[in-house]
Amino acid sequence: MGPHPAVAAIRLAVRRVLHDILSEHTPTTDQTAHERPSSPLVLVACSGGADSMALASALAFEAPKLGIRAGGITVDHGLQPGSGMRAEEVVLRLRELGLDPVESATVTVGREGGPEAAARDARYAALDAAAVRLDAAAVLLGHTRDDQAETVLLGLARGSGIRSLSGMAAVSGAGGRYRRPFLQLDRQTARKACMVQSLPVWDDPHNADPAYTRSRLRHEGLPALEKALGKGVVEALARTAQLSRDDADALDAWAGQVEASVRDAAGRLECDKLYVLPPAVRRRILRRAAIEAGAPAGSLFARHIEEVDRLITGWRGQGAINLPGKVIAQRQGGRLVIRQG
Amino acid sequence: MGPHPAVAAIRLAVRRVLHDILSEHTPTTDQTAHERPSSPLVLVACSGGADSMALASALAFEAPKLGIRAGGITVDHGLQPGSGMRAEEVVLRLRELGLDPVESATVTVGREGGPEAAARDARYAALDAAAVRLDAAAVLLGHTRDDQAETVLLGLARGSGIRSLSGMAAVSGAGGRYRRPFLQLDRQTARKACMVQSLPVWDDPHNADPAYTRSRLRHEGLPALEKALGKGVVEALARTAQLSRDDADALDAWAGQVEASVRDAAGRLECDKLYVLPPAVRRRILRRAAIEAGAPAGSLFARHIEEVDRLITGWRGQGAINLPGKVIAQRQGGRLVIRQG
Repeated sequence: MGPHPAVAAIRLAVRRVLHDILSEHTPTTDQTAHERPSSPLVLVACSGGADSMALASALAFEAPKLGIRAGGITVDHGLQPGSGMRAEEVVLRLRELGLDPVESATVTVGREGGPEAAARDARYAALDAAAVRLDAAAVLLGHTRDDQAETVLLGLARGSGIRSLSGMAAVSGAGGRYRRPFLQLDRQTARKACMVQSLPVWDDPHNADPAYTRSRLRHEGLPALEKALGKGVVEALARTAQLSRDDADALDAWAGQVEASVRDAAGRLECDKLYVLPPAVRRRILRRAAIEAGAPAGSLFARHIEEVDRLITGWRGQGAINLPGKVIAQRQGGRLVIRQG
Repeated sequence: MGPHPAVAAIRLAVRRVLHDILSEHTPTTDQTAHERPSSPLVLVACSGGADSMALASALAFEAPKLGIRAGGITVDHGLQPGSGMRAEEVVLRLRELGLDPVESATVTVGREGGPEAAARDARYAALDAAAVRLDAAAVLLGHTRDDQAETVLLGLARGSGIRSLSGMAAVSGAGGRYRRPFLQLDRQTARKACMVQSLPVWDDPHNADPAYTRSRLRHEGLPALEKALGKGVVEALARTAQLSRDDADALDAWAGQVEASVRDAAGRLECDKLYVLPPAVRRRILRRAAIEAGAPAGSLFARHIEEVDRLITGWRGQGAINLPGKVIAQRQGGRLVIRQG
């Protein structure tokens, strides 16, 4: 008799990703034996919650069969009393699963961008540092399809276009360091896999704290949406993420290719050449130009770009337009000039 | 003292659209007086509800000032007892506003695509017929920003990509017949405008019937989402619609331009040329080819196209793939053949 279906599902998901990592790390036939890298190390980032404990258990099971070393890291955000003890407990559990090395990293969470963003920034910085120090080939993250659906809705609430609808990538970070094997798997499967493997899991109280936007979305917003639209909403949101990502990538590439052709010899943007481009491409070029001139990407909203766009499509002698980061956009003799004021 | 802000807002929205219609209908200077078309007729499609009654009142106020004739049409779907009497009442109210001509059209609602889709199809067929018969330059529809937000969420639930996120267009139909002046205006403003103008409005019981997806979304889904994500959700969804529409238009145009270049002399799709395209563009070409071969667009889902795409990107000798409408896709000697089986 094989493993429980939930356990089979998490293992398959991890196995696929390990195969990808391995294929990228296979030494070329030109290399002699002593030049071959030792067996690659793959880390799991583990909070002790169900998703990442399930991930750790699947990594511990699959990695040895493929000649991969499996390690783990847990991040202590220091945001709750006793968080240090809990991190030590997670380290212990990961070692019990057979992972080696296993480390705990303590971080200091700042305030920039709100509590959730600050915690995330600190966490990834610690994971990056650990991956470099341990020379890890990859770091696995336990985000599930449900997390992806929540991320899409959070992006939707920004109303800033399809890039913000594209959620989390299956592969991201420097050199494709981060991998998300569970992005197509639902949270329930991860929980079930922990249960049938008798893995104790820790429920982060933040996950149920209505002070956090994501938590409100998880416990109220998304269930209400499912009630109205049907049970397939989470899957539909996850698919929207993938399709939006591909579309955004293609349009960014297009804008990148076209950009040089709409500039004059001095590198200035020519309004008549911009005018004939599809609006979606033109606005991406304008956005790139504004960011290049010093506007912070995070403060540059769709309405800013629309206003700049009207210098091209609705020209009636408007004055200079102020953009974030003290950047100014103005039309001068058929040219669009975007520069820091 | 000017009109109430809500009344000013609905009038401004209608005035802008009337200016657009007028500019498209201005006779050229070459025409002599007797060749000039008579003043154009603009119809309002009115259910008697707050949104379309507000629209009718604004049209009645603005049209005469621009030399436009204002008329109205109401559609009796015959779905409820007494619907004929109600249609007559709407006709009466529109005449009281000064609209002329005003007509009521009785339609028979079929069953295709569910009750909401069938009612919509019947309604637009009647509006099309009335517009042609009365030689109307345009038909105004009362959809608000809230309707747009609901439409985006309905599209999101399909998970079929950014085209289904693009909601309703401000201008649509044959020759741009349909115009939606209130697409940037919230429902509350339309209701307020009716109230302060003492316009009696009719509340369609369907709008509150939880048997209808849109109604559940309006009364439960969207409010819960606003509670989780903040009050800006409706605006963000409406902006997402516009951005998605522009992006989808650009990518469709790109796919259309590239398509000829990936076909051989006999018109067959060449796999190696498809392979190097951005996935977003390649999948659009595959989708177009499947529809051209006879697959019904409405039954062709993202997962179908993904499977066909794997004949290009993940070729390992797969067999023919069955698509809706008895269409078959298969790879034959470096060519992708999509045809009705």
